[in-house]
Amino acid sequence: MKVWSDRRILDLFGIELPIILAPMAGPGTVELAIAVSDAGGLGSLPCAQLGPNEIRAAVEMIRRSTSRPINLNFFCHTPPTVDRERELVWRAQLKPYYLELGLDPDTPLSPPSRKPFDRDACALVEEFKPEVVSFHFGLPAQDLLDRVKATKAHVIGTATTVREARWLEAHGCDAIIAMGFEAGGHRGNFLADDMARQVGTFALVPQIADAVEVPVIAAGGVGDARGIVAALALGASAVQIGTAYLFCPEAKVPALHLEALNKAGDDDTMITNVFTGRPARGIVNRLMREVGPMTASAPTFPLASSAIAPLRASSEPNGSNDFVNMWSGQAVRLARRGIPAAEQTRALAVEALAKL
Amino acid sequence: MKVWSDRRILDLFGIELPIILAPMAGPGTVELAIAVSDAGGLGSLPCAQLGPNEIRAAVEMIRRSTSRPINLNFFCHTPPTVDRERELVWRAQLKPYYLELGLDPDTPLSPPSRKPFDRDACALVEEFKPEVVSFHFGLPAQDLLDRVKATKAHVIGTATTVREARWLEAHGCDAIIAMGFEAGGHRGNFLADDMARQVGTFALVPQIADAVEVPVIAAGGVGDARGIVAALALGASAVQIGTAYLFCPEAKVPALHLEALNKAGDDDTMITNVFTGRPARGIVNRLMREVGPMTASAPTFPLASSAIAPLRASSEPNGSNDFVNMWSGQAVRLARRGIPAAEQTRALAVEALAKL
Repeated sequence: MKVWSDRRILDLFGIELPIILAPMAGPGTVELAIAVSDAGGLGSLPCAQLGPNEIRAAVEMIRRSTSRPINLNFFCHTPPTVDRERELVWRAQLKPYYLELGLDPDTPLSPPSRKPFDRDACALVEEFKPEVVSFHFGLPAQDLLDRVKATKAHVIGTATTVREARWLEAHGCDAIIAMGFEAGGHRGNFLADDMARQVGTFALVPQIADAVEVPVIAAGGVGDARGIVAALALGASAVQIGTAYLFCPEAKVPALHLEALNKAGDDDTMITNVFTGRPARGIVNRLMREVGPMTASAPTFPLASSAIAPLRASSEPNGSNDFVNMWSGQAVRLARRGIPAAEQTRALAVEALAKL
Repeated sequence: MKVWSDRRILDLFGIELPIILAPMAGPGTVELAIAVSDAGGLGSLPCAQLGPNEIRAAVEMIRRSTSRPINLNFFCHTPPTVDRERELVWRAQLKPYYLELGLDPDTPLSPPSRKPFDRDACALVEEFKPEVVSFHFGLPAQDLLDRVKATKAHVIGTATTVREARWLEAHGCDAIIAMGFEAGGHRGNFLADDMARQVGTFALVPQIADAVEVPVIAAGGVGDARGIVAALALGASAVQIGTAYLFCPEAKVPALHLEALNKAGDDDTMITNVFTGRPARGIVNRLMREVGPMTASAPTFPLASSAIAPLRASSEPNGSNDFVNMWSGQAVRLARRGIPAAEQTRALAVEALAKL
């Protein structure tokens, strides 16, 4: 029987398969995380859009359901201060859409739901002691990071360049996600900010593997077993898969998003900052085409999202995806559809092993 | 002894190693093509910047030096008509650079050197019967393509999307180069024109392999043996390598370009149209930063290059790369430096086979 020859991530995290569920704030459910962990991979719970009580409830449910290792994922952006002028510019830019939908362009907005890792979240990490804690957009402040590391959690960070990978290693990460240009959702970039310089998975993984001592997890474009084999060949010790899990029944994907995912081909996504103020890859829609894909006028992450929310709320129920952020990677077409996440995870592993 | 399990490209072209030298107009010499063909790969002669007599001399030298198969590469862009107004806008945009360098901003310009495949070139193909003819920017007109195919040459085209791959297959290509976002030099796109939608090698290769019946050649980000193994895992039958060969003594790389290649890291390149009017990936320099990387004001390919030439000619001798197009892929850092092309080709193959 064939076995995984690179056991660095397997031994580090105490998992059986080198497959990590990408944390996907929104579609990523407790059930999805449980299924992937139970199958032998590493399930990830995206905590960036959850309050402390929601995180507590979610982790308690996971711990009741599986004894396997899990990953809690947090964002580490600097909490933005509201720039009144930029807000006005942004709302003026979106005003025609408000008018088109019969909305008051000056309607008060709700604050954004995405929060950075803070003391409350850190206390939950200390309480529940997840085996892995992953951070996006860099790492939290040193005192919080020290507290996380004191729990013995393995800390992983996301790098979109070699420089970011070296920085993460120097700041104590136990493994590094090499996030290629192809990946769906928010880019993890935190030192680099020029999207025109972002690096494809094929070029990024071996260069990061050469630059750091810690094991590397390849993310971006891994849609099937071929991608797992290729990522390992490039020097990764595991892969992180997101988009392919959006087709699993455990994922909570809005109907219009799922419909678009089902139709999307290789070049139907772009990196855009129109939805949140930070670059993220999603399926091209009207807002991205007309306001983006990248615009300097979007307020700082995650403030830009507040003014988009009413547009989405009033149009999505009528079957329009004009204002829906439909995150997806470039390998969406490769994903197997409609099978449960545990089966998907095992099938990917079995097929990859057969090719190794 | 290990052997290549996928022999589709090897048997089609009659070569021993699944490594194709990327045709690189400028740095790609006769010596480089001979060395790669002699080593068992497929040497490519970039003909886009050569006149009929130069092509004749080059092919005669190759045929005298090796009996192995070779590839002649041609561009297939539509010859542009000069748009006076756009020319004026472009020259006005570049005027500050002319003044800075003490040049007359209204100096007459030489016509660009890049020409599309035409009847003269076709006659040379008929005369010399190269085993492989590759086209960039689509395919030539049907009558010319028919004449090429009548010579029994194997025709390959470059696709940057699944749609382009299907189009090339439907129009008679015997193999398709899947050119990922990471690749250096001119993008081969001809149906797609939005650079924000271009696809990374990792996502592109398997999707093209799934979409066409003919064998696929992976290009973009292949810098060492890991990349060859990964490309084959993704469904490619061979790889095309460009940037890594720029470090070989047979390549004719201007000193400042080579210096930049030697220093370049993973995120030091961008896709730009400022040098020729068509998007191409190169190492970031002043012109790209200040005028591009992408600009709508650059005249149609290859007309934009004419107004850049005097800037380069007057600054490069003084050690400035401000106006030098330093084509490079994103995997430049992976390339072994300073070994002859035949040795490089054999080493890549031996190392890849050892990993398979």
